[in-house]
Amino acid sequence: MDERIWTAALVVIGDEILSGRTQDRNVAQLATWLNVQGIRLAEVRVVADVEDAIVAAVTELGGRNDYLFTTGGIGPTHDDITVDAIARALGVGVVIHPKARAILERYYETRGGLTEARLRMARVPDGATLIENRVSGAPGIRCGNWFVMAGVPHITAGMLDALTGTLEGGRPVVSETIGGWVAESEIADILRAVEKETEGVSIGSYPFFREGRVGANFVVRATDADVARACAAELTRRLEADGREVFAGGV
Amino acid sequence: MDERIWTAALVVIGDEILSGRTQDRNVAQLATWLNVQGIRLAEVRVVADVEDAIVAAVTELGGRNDYLFTTGGIGPTHDDITVDAIARALGVGVVIHPKARAILERYYETRGGLTEARLRMARVPDGATLIENRVSGAPGIRCGNWFVMAGVPHITAGMLDALTGTLEGGRPVVSETIGGWVAESEIADILRAVEKETEGVSIGSYPFFREGRVGANFVVRATDADVARACAAELTRRLEADGREVFAGGV
Repeated sequence: MDERIWTAALVVIGDEILSGRTQDRNVAQLATWLNVQGIRLAEVRVVADVEDAIVAAVTELGGRNDYLFTTGGIGPTHDDITVDAIARALGVGVVIHPKARAILERYYETRGGLTEARLRMARVPDGATLIENRVSGAPGIRCGNWFVMAGVPHITAGMLDALTGTLEGGRPVVSETIGGWVAESEIADILRAVEKETEGVSIGSYPFFREGRVGANFVVRATDADVARACAAELTRRLEADGREVFAGGV
Repeated sequence: MDERIWTAALVVIGDEILSGRTQDRNVAQLATWLNVQGIRLAEVRVVADVEDAIVAAVTELGGRNDYLFTTGGIGPTHDDITVDAIARALGVGVVIHPKARAILERYYETRGGLTEARLRMARVPDGATLIENRVSGAPGIRCGNWFVMAGVPHITAGMLDALTGTLEGGRPVVSETIGGWVAESEIADILRAVEKETEGVSIGSYPFFREGRVGANFVVRATDADVARACAAELTRRLEADGREVFAGGV
């Protein structure tokens, strides 16, 4: 298990998340997508629409992860300041990307034309390339291993689709879930022991209350599918030896 | 508008959020609750179940906000390390809280008794007080202005209920929403101008695609309700003068 682990960080930009007005969906969406690319989402920050806060977050997280993603703040209005913040963090200027301009001209041809506000969506940090947006007009932006994406989840999803298979990663993390109607506090020692005995796995314990009863699912994660399977089997054996009924796949 | 603004930060602790397995609900829940207390959620971090990462996040965010909240990692299993991290960040030891122990003894009296694993949930940073948990046994933990809460959203909700009205804050942020079937890119100049002219407000623009059409809601936020109302009225007037139909309350 000495293979390289690739990591990514996400900076979610937007007062609407911090005010509670909007429920974020991009953390879970990006995390799931990254898993398939063999990249681990290592940390997330949610920051306000404040340039200094964005610059600080992307600089710190971009500096210690293989990939950096941002969501939000790339629209046409005054509160959309992500591009300026990214450019400042990278120490480059902001330019109009000719291809982005052409895309917007075409998109708005039948929608009232390309106004000055809409042209803001063609602004990119100098040296950037574009991420295709198959849903609405304005593209996402790629600056090396930094990816600047939309805040609206289904537009973000389209941009991730466009990136699928293009980012270098390691082996995807696979997981095996088992679970049952057992209080996690009753079998905590078994979880701890099995995790400690098996190299290269982590075991998460996720309790729930359902139908008036307590239960828990145990998720064994590893980059080696055989290791995950063997560990889940051993955990099942130990739980059954302790008189617990658990089910493969969880409950 | 020179009154003091009270801020809070949230550290969400848990591999299950970063793996995409669990959709976080605590950011929006805490944000909404804080608004009513007159406290602004200023920043959020999501960190893995790694003690160093938790210590770094709570130290930095706790140091620059009036209040710090954490969610997750206070259960009975090996991956629940929040209490140890908080104690380390505060430079204190970890002790068994006698009242927490009594609560757990009573709770587990009819549920198999207080095992060693369950007793872990009575561990607190030295000097802490308890936050009542009306839902399940284990209480939350308060260390000064730091609040250590559960990860399961309905348990967190109960702990917030127990804290309602006990935290000093400023005037709550109030908001007025207007919206219509208008592309935000068409009226970006009006939004920018109205925000600039009105002291003490911020205007957020939230585009959407619905029923095959584009639209947007504009949210005017201020701590003074009269200011927010007047600004929303002025914004409505200017949008209507520009030939746009908008609706109070948004669409």
